[in-house]
Amino acid sequence: MSLRVGFLGYRFMGRAHANALARLPMFFPDAPAVERAVLIGRDEEALTEAVDRLGFDRYVTDWTAAIDDIDILYNLGPNNLHAEPSIAALEDDVHVFCEKPLAHTLEAAEEMAAAARTSDGRTGIAFNYRFVPAIQLARELIERGELGEIYHVRARYLQDWLADPEAPWSWRNDESVAGSGALGDLGAHSIDLAQFLLADRVERVSGHLRTFVDERPVPDGAGGIDGDGGGSETRPVTVDDAFSTQATFEGGAMGTFEASRMATGHDNGNVIEVNGSKGSLRFDLERLNELDVKRPDGRGFETVLVTEEDDPYGDRWWPAGHVLGWEHTFVHENAAFLDAVESGNKYEPDFEDGLQVQRVLDAIERSDERGERVDV
Amino acid sequence: MSLRVGFLGYRFMGRAHANALARLPMFFPDAPAVERAVLIGRDEEALTEAVDRLGFDRYVTDWTAAIDDIDILYNLGPNNLHAEPSIAALEDDVHVFCEKPLAHTLEAAEEMAAAARTSDGRTGIAFNYRFVPAIQLARELIERGELGEIYHVRARYLQDWLADPEAPWSWRNDESVAGSGALGDLGAHSIDLAQFLLADRVERVSGHLRTFVDERPVPDGAGGIDGDGGGSETRPVTVDDAFSTQATFEGGAMGTFEASRMATGHDNGNVIEVNGSKGSLRFDLERLNELDVKRPDGRGFETVLVTEEDDPYGDRWWPAGHVLGWEHTFVHENAAFLDAVESGNKYEPDFEDGLQVQRVLDAIERSDERGERVDV
Amino acid sequence: MSLRVGFLGYRFMGRAHANALARLPMFFPDAPAVERAVLIGRDEEALTEAVDRLGFDRYVTDWTAAIDDIDILYNLGPNNLHAEPSIAALEDDVHVFCEKPLAHTLEAAEEMAAAARTSDGRTGIAFNYRFVPAIQLARELIERGELGEIYHVRARYLQDWLADPEAPWSWRNDESVAGSGALGDLGAHSIDLAQFLLADRVERVSGHLRTFVDERPVPDGAGGIDGDGGGSETRPVTVDDAFSTQATFEGGAMGTFEASRMATGHDNGNVIEVNGSKGSLRFDLERLNELDVKRPDGRGFETVLVTEEDDPYGDRWWPAGHVLGWEHTFVHENAAFLDAVESGNKYEPDFEDGLQVQRVLDAIERSDERGERVDV
Amino acid sequence: MSLRVGFLGYRFMGRAHANALARLPMFFPDAPAVERAVLIGRDEEALTEAVDRLGFDRYVTDWTAAIDDIDILYNLGPNNLHAEPSIAALEDDVHVFCEKPLAHTLEAAEEMAAAARTSDGRTGIAFNYRFVPAIQLARELIERGELGEIYHVRARYLQDWLADPEAPWSWRNDESVAGSGALGDLGAHSIDLAQFLLADRVERVSGHLRTFVDERPVPDGAGGIDGDGGGSETRPVTVDDAFSTQATFEGGAMGTFEASRMATGHDNGNVIEVNGSKGSLRFDLERLNELDVKRPDGRGFETVLVTEEDDPYGDRWWPAGHVLGWEHTFVHENAAFLDAVESGNKYEPDFEDGLQVQRVLDAIERSDERGERVDV
Repeated sequence: MSLRVGFLGYRFMGRAHANALARLPMFFPDAPAVERAVLIGRDEEALTEAVDRLGFDRYVTDWTAAIDDIDILYNLGPNNLHAEPSIAALEDDVHVFCEKPLAHTLEAAEEMAAAARTSDGRTGIAFNYRFVPAIQLARELIERGELGEIYHVRARYLQDWLADPEAPWSWRNDESVAGSGALGDLGAHSIDLAQFLLADRVERVSGHLRTFVDERPVPDGAGGIDGDGGGSETRPVTVDDAFSTQATFEGGAMGTFEASRMATGHDNGNVIEVNGSKGSLRFDLERLNELDVKRPDGRGFETVLVTEEDDPYGDRWWPAGHVLGWEHTFVHENAAFLDAVESGNKYEPDFEDGLQVQRVLDAIERSDERGERVDV
Repeated sequence: MSLRVGFLGYRFMGRAHANALARLPMFFPDAPAVERAVLIGRDEEALTEAVDRLGFDRYVTDWTAAIDDIDILYNLGPNNLHAEPSIAALEDDVHVFCEKPLAHTLEAAEEMAAAARTSDGRTGIAFNYRFVPAIQLARELIERGELGEIYHVRARYLQDWLADPEAPWSWRNDESVAGSGALGDLGAHSIDLAQFLLADRVERVSGHLRTFVDERPVPDGAGGIDGDGGGSETRPVTVDDAFSTQATFEGGAMGTFEASRMATGHDNGNVIEVNGSKGSLRFDLERLNELDVKRPDGRGFETVLVTEEDDPYGDRWWPAGHVLGWEHTFVHENAAFLDAVESGNKYEPDFEDGLQVQRVLDAIERSDERGERVDV
Repeated sequence: MSLRVGFLGYRFMGRAHANALARLPMFFPDAPAVERAVLIGRDEEALTEAVDRLGFDRYVTDWTAAIDDIDILYNLGPNNLHAEPSIAALEDDVHVFCEKPLAHTLEAAEEMAAAARTSDGRTGIAFNYRFVPAIQLARELIERGELGEIYHVRARYLQDWLADPEAPWSWRNDESVAGSGALGDLGAHSIDLAQFLLADRVERVSGHLRTFVDERPVPDGAGGIDGDGGGSETRPVTVDDAFSTQATFEGGAMGTFEASRMATGHDNGNVIEVNGSKGSLRFDLERLNELDVKRPDGRGFETVLVTEEDDPYGDRWWPAGHVLGWEHTFVHENAAFLDAVESGNKYEPDFEDGLQVQRVLDAIERSDERGERVDV
Repeated sequence: MSLRVGFLGYRFMGRAHANALARLPMFFPDAPAVERAVLIGRDEEALTEAVDRLGFDRYVTDWTAAIDDIDILYNLGPNNLHAEPSIAALEDDVHVFCEKPLAHTLEAAEEMAAAARTSDGRTGIAFNYRFVPAIQLARELIERGELGEIYHVRARYLQDWLADPEAPWSWRNDESVAGSGALGDLGAHSIDLAQFLLADRVERVSGHLRTFVDERPVPDGAGGIDGDGGGSETRPVTVDDAFSTQATFEGGAMGTFEASRMATGHDNGNVIEVNGSKGSLRFDLERLNELDVKRPDGRGFETVLVTEEDDPYGDRWWPAGHVLGWEHTFVHENAAFLDAVESGNKYEPDFEDGLQVQRVLDAIERSDERGERVDV
């Protein structure tokens, strides 16, 4: 019996997860069988095309109509649509896999996590970068103590698609939909990654948010989330374009975080470095097959191409040196989540992990508002 | 009506092409429909598992039995098995897509190209690196004259899986099967890439082949291509471990080529650089999303991440900065070949291109034997 | 008539400045003539050797005895010895060139700057990294508007000589001598560099200081600044091992700063990046001949080797591509300072600039103590 | 008693060596004392200025007049002026340090080496890149067997100052003066470096020389070596713009060499890589403080900043991480040569080493002419 899945959302994330599911049989033949059962959205024309393209059986325009017919809900919609359908699904013991950040507000995230605690459904949150082979290897090295005591974590996630003040407005610039800007969209990844690598939690933060461009033009005929707009109209930007944070981890490490959508020259610069008393690690998503390692007996950083058969996921794909791409993280992630669903084992990262990151995001915003260091 | 394809070979290359075909519908919906009809091999146990895993309808152990039932033969076997099935297929006007190098000898390659000329079948040869987005962009830049007159092409393809003298013998070390070693396996890629980028041909060469390790242990129970062997047995290495070549192109450029399977520290270092009077380009397969460009008005090399929507294949996959992997070259290649099959248009690179590369390989071997510079 | 200079200090910084003065005649023949007149210190044995080695006429063990006989005092001693001799010299209208940070406390720095305002002596503070050719070029590019509006400055200065908890104690770990740790030693450079590049000032900061190792062993017979100690004795570390800061510039840019002496794998990683609406720049002291530039019409960062004849200082040294080293920054700096002394022109950076940086350092410490964002 | 030195030549190389001598007392106090006694040239006006700038006592316009008054002749003139003065000096038992390549013809080089054999003077040839700390470290690693058996040496020396066909003619384009082009100017460095690192010799070569631009404009009023010319006049280029070579070493390694003055985007790209059965090394002169090392127990290349106190020359200069420049190679080279002169010990590389490189250069030219592989 296949697991029947429904996707709420069919654009970027919908394609990425549909592709991941489609690739499982050839590369993860031990993964549970999956039926792409229902695609959920509002635009019937787009849905008609997407159902076919993404290999779904049918579509519905009302998510409440889908929940009875699926085993797993993939909630891939805008952040303010994460809570209600996810909670409803969990109340029906449907498993839920949700895009990050968990929600657009801490309250919504709390409610989602509460729903998860009383449901028989598994939950997952899409911090896909945990599933980069180089990141998995990094975690192993840290767990084995090869870095010694951890002193520093330094993460930045830099993009530049809003560097131009004339770059168009979208729902990602609207606080009521997105919750926050670079902070929740990019910073959430960095915070989860740091906490995952260190197996530790951020305890206190000083946060700084910044909006460089207060309003942006609405593209003709697009009109953002509501469908109206166009022409020379502009809309207010109510989220951060960039943020920075100084953090202390429970275990004592010192962290710095920064993200921006206006860092000219960076397409997808998700970079993290960890320094310990004996060694260090460095990762850059734009070169995702590489992990730079300063070993205890080494002098400088060694560039390790993480594609050997013994490397994480190395036996799943191609011979050494035949590099993977961004989308492979989704395949790994889905294989792990589906395995948890089938086996009943805990999946990490789940809604609790998502909630914990959301608390850090919230603390950063509180800190920025008050101009004070705050506890998470 | 789907195109029915048969694969001769189901290991590394079989998986790579099966994966490519499986991904076309979602990312190249305009590509012709394909039915993975027949898998051809000799080991029934392995075939049984592979048919299922790679999504084929059935398998046969005799290739002659398959040709009548397919529209396209993918010849993915060892080099000495390229000619006979390909020629038989072409004689039946079956389209043939063949792994590189075209054949294990120049004579066999000539016969294959001759068969192609009189067949209604399209042919293709799997120089997949032409289909890296960065390489396509490189070709465009050169065609547009952004490098000016081309002076230098410098290509090397370095691997290290035979650096250890105790690394096991395989059919790739046997001249009667493989034809040559690093030369045909890696050098063929570099030569095709250089000729493709420059839209030019190698005219004269001085070649140097080298076998560092004369015999290698046969792995227990493996026994190479024949299935016997094992224990402390060794077998002679009858191909080159490495080669180098100096070349002159018809258009006047000066080329250097080198490949090795014993270049410690290199997993899959397929690197090519082109220098012209105005600009330069540099590509490294281990960082396949990047193209380093020295522009006419620039001072140094600029690292371009070739993932923008306007970049080659940029509109097919993910937003800018979400990098592709090695296997995507196979998707692009198959999309182009299938389109040629359906439309009847010429496909490049075809058997003529494969033959031309084979002539260069042969010239390099002749030059090495004679200790002289020779014409291609 | 030569300018007579006296050096207070003859170790690392003494050698660096003596070397710089020695090289001026050959490479900056237009620089004023200099007589290395007096070396000032306490250890006569060491002074005897250093006078000869560094090319001085004589030494004294009491700085007050030197001031009458010199035109310029180079104050190269520990931070808590910056104020008194510098002020005394300025009161005698002796020019003063002082190592950074300006002083060990803000109060001392204020007094030094006040003395400078009423003296006929020129002052200089040794922010030598302003004089890296790549940094000079970076400043020119920003001044010419090639980066557009500046959004981000991101500076970190990472070293690892204290990463080992057993690394020995020195005066640099003592607040009463050094004032602060990584903050004043490394962070001062980054702050000055950022302000210099942007021609702007830090306005508000959130600072975070951290001491990972509370006490360190005193090396046998060394005994730090006081000369006693040794054996298995340890001494308390009363300064920061690392700091981080989030900053706002008066002109609106957002800045992040970090420095550490415990960042394993980094010898002298003084890295700064600036992102603007049109372009970006990146510099790393470990590759000091290079400037990475994202141009308005470029796609990625271009590695510019800043050694052309038209580059800053490019006509002073060697043909293009013949790289300079760290010490060349001292030659450039001394040439500029001596020219200001001779001409009576203003030198930058002077004590006012040093004081402004000291105010930022102080604000970072205040912010850390209070757990609040503070104004500079 | 100081060693009295005379320099034949006072431009680029004259400055580089004068600077080196001037820096010895501060950084190599154990080096013999040197008196810059005589500067030798033809242009009195230029000499007058240079004598002062470079710190010489006097100048002469006839080299024969200088030999009696000096202990060491630095022959820094064009290649065709290496033999006669060097031989005359050696006949008077004057030590001779000569720029590379040893001579403009093999015959002249043979005569110079013969003169050296019967003289009491020491000889040295200025293969200064042996004295890069990273290269010294590389040699140590190879000597200690950390790379295992050496398979590959891959050297290229790329510059681009002649990439523009309108770049002006100079004596370096004239065979009668320079002997060869990129081959002798750049290739000589690569060949020496490879032989030095491997402690081995090139045995056979296949060479390929190339002149892309047959004539070049003579700059107004410059007129190259003869002083006439100017206007729209051009002169023939009678040397190679670029060369490539495949080589076999006596010990069995396989080598490839390439140099060009027309490799757009490369200022001074002197790159060498060595691959052995256990490890590899890589060096790039544009980042001369770095050595990339693939260790036996490592996975990829580690970037080692060769500035630690225990590194070659590491105790002579600055603390770790404070990088050196190109000119420091001359300081190290001169310290070693002067020490050999004083002690009577053998200096390497000497005229015999220069002759051996010249034989390789000659073999490359012979091979190119004949279109055959030839013995050195």
